[in-house]
Amino acid sequence: MVAESESLWRVTFDNPPINLVTPEMLVELPELIDQMEASSQLRVVVFESANPDYFLNHYDTSRVAETPTNLGVTGYPLVVDTSTRLSHLPVTSIAKIRGRVRGIGNELTQAMDMRFASRNSLFCQPETASGNLPGGGGLEHLSRLMGRGRALEVALSSDDYPGELAERYGWINRAVEDSDLDAVVDTLALIALTEIPH
Amino acid sequence: MVAESESLWRVTFDNPPINLVTPEMLVELPELIDQMEASSQLRVVVFESANPDYFLNHYDTSRVAETPTNLGVTGYPLVVDTSTRLSHLPVTSIAKIRGRVRGIGNELTQAMDMRFASRNSLFCQPETASGNLPGGGGLEHLSRLMGRGRALEVALSSDDYPGELAERYGWINRAVEDSDLDAVVDTLALIALTEIPH
Amino acid sequence: MVAESESLWRVTFDNPPINLVTPEMLVELPELIDQMEASSQLRVVVFESANPDYFLNHYDTSRVAETPTNLGVTGYPLVVDTSTRLSHLPVTSIAKIRGRVRGIGNELTQAMDMRFASRNSLFCQPETASGNLPGGGGLEHLSRLMGRGRALEVALSSDDYPGELAERYGWINRAVEDSDLDAVVDTLALIALTEIPH
Repeated sequence: MVAESESLWRVTFDNPPINLVTPEMLVELPELIDQMEASSQLRVVVFESANPDYFLNHYDTSRVAETPTNLGVTGYPLVVDTSTRLSHLPVTSIAKIRGRVRGIGNELTQAMDMRFASRNSLFCQPETASGNLPGGGGLEHLSRLMGRGRALEVALSSDDYPGELAERYGWINRAVEDSDLDAVVDTLALIALTEIPH
Repeated sequence: MVAESESLWRVTFDNPPINLVTPEMLVELPELIDQMEASSQLRVVVFESANPDYFLNHYDTSRVAETPTNLGVTGYPLVVDTSTRLSHLPVTSIAKIRGRVRGIGNELTQAMDMRFASRNSLFCQPETASGNLPGGGGLEHLSRLMGRGRALEVALSSDDYPGELAERYGWINRAVEDSDLDAVVDTLALIALTEIPH
Repeated sequence: MVAESESLWRVTFDNPPINLVTPEMLVELPELIDQMEASSQLRVVVFESANPDYFLNHYDTSRVAETPTNLGVTGYPLVVDTSTRLSHLPVTSIAKIRGRVRGIGNELTQAMDMRFASRNSLFCQPETASGNLPGGGGLEHLSRLMGRGRALEVALSSDDYPGELAERYGWINRAVEDSDLDAVVDTLALIALTEIPH
């Protein structure tokens, strides 16, 4: 995490080689949200990735046994806790998406306020194909974003959806040319810092 | 109806020459839904048409006098009964749409879980132009799928909406090339058979 | 306002040079809505503009001091009162949009039942960039039309959205070729006059 200023922070997902979500991340994310909630100056957070091919991936299933089992401050398991707190954060959160967004990575991304993606992005909620259910808010967010019929399709198909189709489904705000993505998100982030007097 | 397997059934609408909905169909559809509800193995139903120009048409108005007047098991008239039971069916229902979808045919199609259409499809809710109201769930489903403004437009205009525009309005999941339609639907149907352990 | 017939009225916004909303308009619009509510024959109202570059603009900020402070018949301030009454009007209201729609002009336009726009149109809800909030229903209507994430983007960015993007976001029913706009709206208006027997 880099505080670009007191009011604008950038969070960079960086877990080589393919940005899987790990047990460590499940501990670090709530701590990061603690900091965001505690800051009285923070207004906008931009989430991005160090890896242009993977924004945020599914859970590292080779490490399921290490998954922390403690509950978060909301009383929910850590994944749901993080996703819920992210949704309720009283600051503007923006995802700047390049590459793949999958599984728990997609559930966390949907909990952000806005999502802008490169046309090279790919979205997937893959749990059903392996006999599981998305458990971190995936089904709830998908159906609100794109309606029941398309959410059901996305969850059942476990398929990859390119950015442009994700936009048509309402999964993201917009898919833009990769070369425009930084400007679109960073301009919006700067404007969103505008102070609204109470 | 063909049971491709115990868990995957295909229902083919076949009433030459233009797949009008008839009094007979109003009796047969509830019976078919009885069978679907009674099966403990059924997981996915694909609805398709024997006629590539008409998926499912409006009611055969020349036979209004023969319309059965008994109420269905839900206590509603048969059209609303069928549409309601289809919506609540605890199996995944998918419409594979080629050609025209009109009137009561559209209302039944909207009660299915997902709708995929050939680009050659045409959608229409034509009642208003003849001084009637869609009575089988048309208005309720349309406004949930595409929002109030577009639903009002569709119902008032009584116009034909090509598959591609129907997709933009959220009327269907997606309009695809006619040559891709079978693969898109049948692949999804197979994946939707995946067993989720309780 | 021109009554094309007892059942079809046309309202033309005409405040040169750029169709700003003025204190006078805040008085005239409720009076116009009084007339619409009082007519037992009126069924459809088409709103259009005398200026192809501006459908309906933001408020004339040079005249804020003259803004009437009396409450409307709903008990709300006049802007909210007008927007609310327009939403509830028991006649079909259609916006035929050419040019810019901004600020309070957009809020009033969103209160209409349907919106069709030329591809040359531009939509903007600009208050946030100047440290204000849209106060006439902008946030409420935007989030219902396009979902929370896109509404937040539109309100925070204070950016101009071309008709075609506005369509993709659900802001309007459809963006059409400028040369087709009159036919699309006027045909729909005529069909919407159809009498539905009670």
